[in-house]
Amino acid sequence: MNDRLQQQLAFALEIDKEKNILRQTHLSEHGRRENDAEHAWHMAIMSWLLREYANEEVDIARVMLMCLIHDVVEIDAGDTYAYDAEGLKTQAAREEAAKKRIFGLLPPDQAEQLMALFDEFEAWETPESKFAHAMDNLQPILLNNSNGGSDWREHGVSAEQVYGRQRPTTKGSEQLYRDVIEPIIEEHIERGNLRVG
Amino acid sequence: MNDRLQQQLAFALEIDKEKNILRQTHLSEHGRRENDAEHAWHMAIMSWLLREYANEEVDIARVMLMCLIHDVVEIDAGDTYAYDAEGLKTQAAREEAAKKRIFGLLPPDQAEQLMALFDEFEAWETPESKFAHAMDNLQPILLNNSNGGSDWREHGVSAEQVYGRQRPTTKGSEQLYRDVIEPIIEEHIERGNLRVG
Repeated sequence: MNDRLQQQLAFALEIDKEKNILRQTHLSEHGRRENDAEHAWHMAIMSWLLREYANEEVDIARVMLMCLIHDVVEIDAGDTYAYDAEGLKTQAAREEAAKKRIFGLLPPDQAEQLMALFDEFEAWETPESKFAHAMDNLQPILLNNSNGGSDWREHGVSAEQVYGRQRPTTKGSEQLYRDVIEPIIEEHIERGNLRVG
Repeated sequence: MNDRLQQQLAFALEIDKEKNILRQTHLSEHGRRENDAEHAWHMAIMSWLLREYANEEVDIARVMLMCLIHDVVEIDAGDTYAYDAEGLKTQAAREEAAKKRIFGLLPPDQAEQLMALFDEFEAWETPESKFAHAMDNLQPILLNNSNGGSDWREHGVSAEQVYGRQRPTTKGSEQLYRDVIEPIIEEHIERGNLRVG
């Protein structure tokens, strides 16, 4: 086997560990906690399904690949909960080191491509990145909504925190924010699942 | 919210159940059993990484989407282990009914597109389907190899069964079969992890 193929397989085996990184979101039907790999799978399919709602036209192959790899860094850096203020302070530095180590397992050309795609996701500037982030926000809110908002209740999350996290979804899709996310947040405020004030 | 978006979200929520369908493969480092969603995630990334080894040029967006959705039917039909002769007899009928119900949740145009993509995968005829199947075969063998062949030992699988399952990988990638899969099988025959004769 040549070096290039060996490096590609080493990376393929390494990312298997993403299946052990648990998120705070629970699966539908009050299931167990979700892991990063299945979250990424779900986002990638949703990006294809819902691409007609993107504000701008997107290269859907780039969006799907971005969704699939956006959490690979958490193998080293761990999952940082969206409402964990302390963790968020060090998240960027932890993820930068992880990015170099993990994508660095690949042959240089592919390492460079995937690091660039990860950076593009993080920069939240291109239509593809904005839409991938919209999926990253929409996917867990769908699950949490299906579970009656239990993830929010469990962590005592406030409406203001959720709005802060979810408003940037509008950069990727005004319509999905207006027609799906906003009504869900309003409903859970009303039902007392999100703290107000 | 309009009907179309409602149907798309109903499908998105339904496929969450794929995360509960367990395969016989175990995660690397002697982990727990893998589920269908994370298996599909892994295959989709591997298809992008290894596309240079496809026998024929492939539309990688189609391959990735095919990988992502190829096991959705198992939500109803369950996972059929590659070496379960009885289960394999009824697999096609179970999966056909599941396909209609699950993709049928979508708006008609998307239902039709994804059913066609699933049928294309199953037919094993296009370059994209052949390469997606190569990933479907390569991904679990990489994990099982990393675990010292324990999935094979546990089920008393024979070398002949593994060759039978893996040889069609050559339709998608001669090189991956020759340089990766064949040497792995030979090693595990030698180490006594696969029954011979």
